[in-house]
Amino acid sequence: MIRLAILGYGNLGRGVEAAVKHNPDTELVAVFTRRDPSTVKINSNAKVYSSKDLEAHKDEVDVLIICGGSATDLPKQTPDAVKYFNVIDSFDTHANIPQHFANVDAAAKAAGHIGFISVGWDPGMFSLARVYSNAILTDGSDYTFWGRGVSQGHSDAIRRIAGVKDARQYTVPVPSALEAVRSGKCPELTTRQKHTRECYVVAEEGADLARIENEIKTMPNYFADYDTTVTFITEEEMKKNHAGLPHGGLVIRTGKTGMNNEHTHTIEYSLKLDSNPEFTASVLVAFARAAYRMNKDGISGCKTVLDVPPVLLSAESPEYLRAHML
Amino acid sequence: MIRLAILGYGNLGRGVEAAVKHNPDTELVAVFTRRDPSTVKINSNAKVYSSKDLEAHKDEVDVLIICGGSATDLPKQTPDAVKYFNVIDSFDTHANIPQHFANVDAAAKAAGHIGFISVGWDPGMFSLARVYSNAILTDGSDYTFWGRGVSQGHSDAIRRIAGVKDARQYTVPVPSALEAVRSGKCPELTTRQKHTRECYVVAEEGADLARIENEIKTMPNYFADYDTTVTFITEEEMKKNHAGLPHGGLVIRTGKTGMNNEHTHTIEYSLKLDSNPEFTASVLVAFARAAYRMNKDGISGCKTVLDVPPVLLSAESPEYLRAHML
Repeated sequence: MIRLAILGYGNLGRGVEAAVKHNPDTELVAVFTRRDPSTVKINSNAKVYSSKDLEAHKDEVDVLIICGGSATDLPKQTPDAVKYFNVIDSFDTHANIPQHFANVDAAAKAAGHIGFISVGWDPGMFSLARVYSNAILTDGSDYTFWGRGVSQGHSDAIRRIAGVKDARQYTVPVPSALEAVRSGKCPELTTRQKHTRECYVVAEEGADLARIENEIKTMPNYFADYDTTVTFITEEEMKKNHAGLPHGGLVIRTGKTGMNNEHTHTIEYSLKLDSNPEFTASVLVAFARAAYRMNKDGISGCKTVLDVPPVLLSAESPEYLRAHML
Repeated sequence: MIRLAILGYGNLGRGVEAAVKHNPDTELVAVFTRRDPSTVKINSNAKVYSSKDLEAHKDEVDVLIICGGSATDLPKQTPDAVKYFNVIDSFDTHANIPQHFANVDAAAKAAGHIGFISVGWDPGMFSLARVYSNAILTDGSDYTFWGRGVSQGHSDAIRRIAGVKDARQYTVPVPSALEAVRSGKCPELTTRQKHTRECYVVAEEGADLARIENEIKTMPNYFADYDTTVTFITEEEMKKNHAGLPHGGLVIRTGKTGMNNEHTHTIEYSLKLDSNPEFTASVLVAFARAAYRMNKDGISGCKTVLDVPPVLLSAESPEYLRAHML
């Protein structure tokens, strides 16, 4: 049994707890929380400890899955915790990956542990799709579309507007852009041409709806560069129709082969997810298995999804995989 | 520069020759042929040698790409050639992979070389899609669809019928089956429900078309279990409309997550290929790069696509991939 622990019991932490149920060669032994452990009720029989006590439990855990946020939690938590455990995170600030990698690599090597970073679906499975397809089709163009799905960052940005009680933002690929990409035409697409943004907003009583709508649509970085629609709904509608966290998207590469580039190929990898955190958690648990195995083989340092032979992700044996999945 | 050579100069061999053009860190140094080398005209400046002379050139080649057929060529060629070179093949008789693996593994280990087998798109990229998606969604169902594309085995089977001059068979996924799978309903599908077979046939003058059509449609294994259409065409139409070797397909896995399996997810990997041999060749060259690097690192034995860290497939550095593709 691979002994897993979770640091941070939010949506993603609960997703990992559920994923353990679907991976019978793993068990959840501990949940570490920044809250008072006695106030945290979990869905399994794992122990709940304070996140200050990581070191005390270093011999009880094979891999710690860190479920903090990329902005401020993970840059500190991951290099810190890798001193005591093999760890894995879903750091997703793409621009800062090289710096995070360097920090985790130094700490992981010093401790003789594995520190997996940026594991999930983007970065994660989408990164794999990009690297595989670029290695095969060396002359081509890459496209990534996100959605239809809830962007938590964009939902939060709307919630910070005065007069907004609750909000949910869906990122939606533009069908005609997708069609142009799939046709192999290699279109150059602007931000506005690739995605639209649908906002569902619960306003406070008496709030100025026109002002809220205008503030959303003109918000720089988040909405100003997109065709954005704003729909005001009731709290009941929000609860009934927008409680989930679906997401997904597509990575497409089109490229040319042949002595004279005479043939065109399209490689497409797509995800349609009912629950973004549960899917991300399922990816994390598969790579936690690989972290455990790689560290047992004497490997240490910072690793990403690009460093893992796929055979290490599966609970099945290499012989089984060759006979049944190759 | 990675020095590549080709054994067998047919459609796939020519595809490898073209793929080398698209991979500037590789060069094609030799083509080995069973024919009289003086009669083989190739599209590049590589030397052409007899396939009997592999051993004489063992120090000139980093990886030999074996482009023979799975039925009789590869089971002999791959374990034989791995004595002299790192080799890679696209062995695609799924049921015989474990035996082929064992043969190549013994010979490769004895020689200290790498022998990659079953590299291409199925087996190959589709195998990777199956292993990744099964490792993530452990509770689910797998579906593989092939086409729309030319099946060379089925085309050959038609050509063996008396009165048939030429034939081309397209395998086509049934749209309603695809839709049912993508919906996450996990349908149980029969052979007939998944694919149809479209046959284009040039008959000899005066041949009994009704007999030919009947022989095709009732042919066991190849056509009897499918809804098959037969269209008789002229030689000119065959040349004009059916000269290419397009193919492709989809690997879909749908699965459940959550404490009570409450969420459904769909992972889909799809290929749309203008030229089956050129795409397969492009996959072979990427994995030849990995074979070269792995052997330099002291690794030997039989390997498949499942054993390769994706980072080894790309001509770009790990740092570049982390910064730009993760």
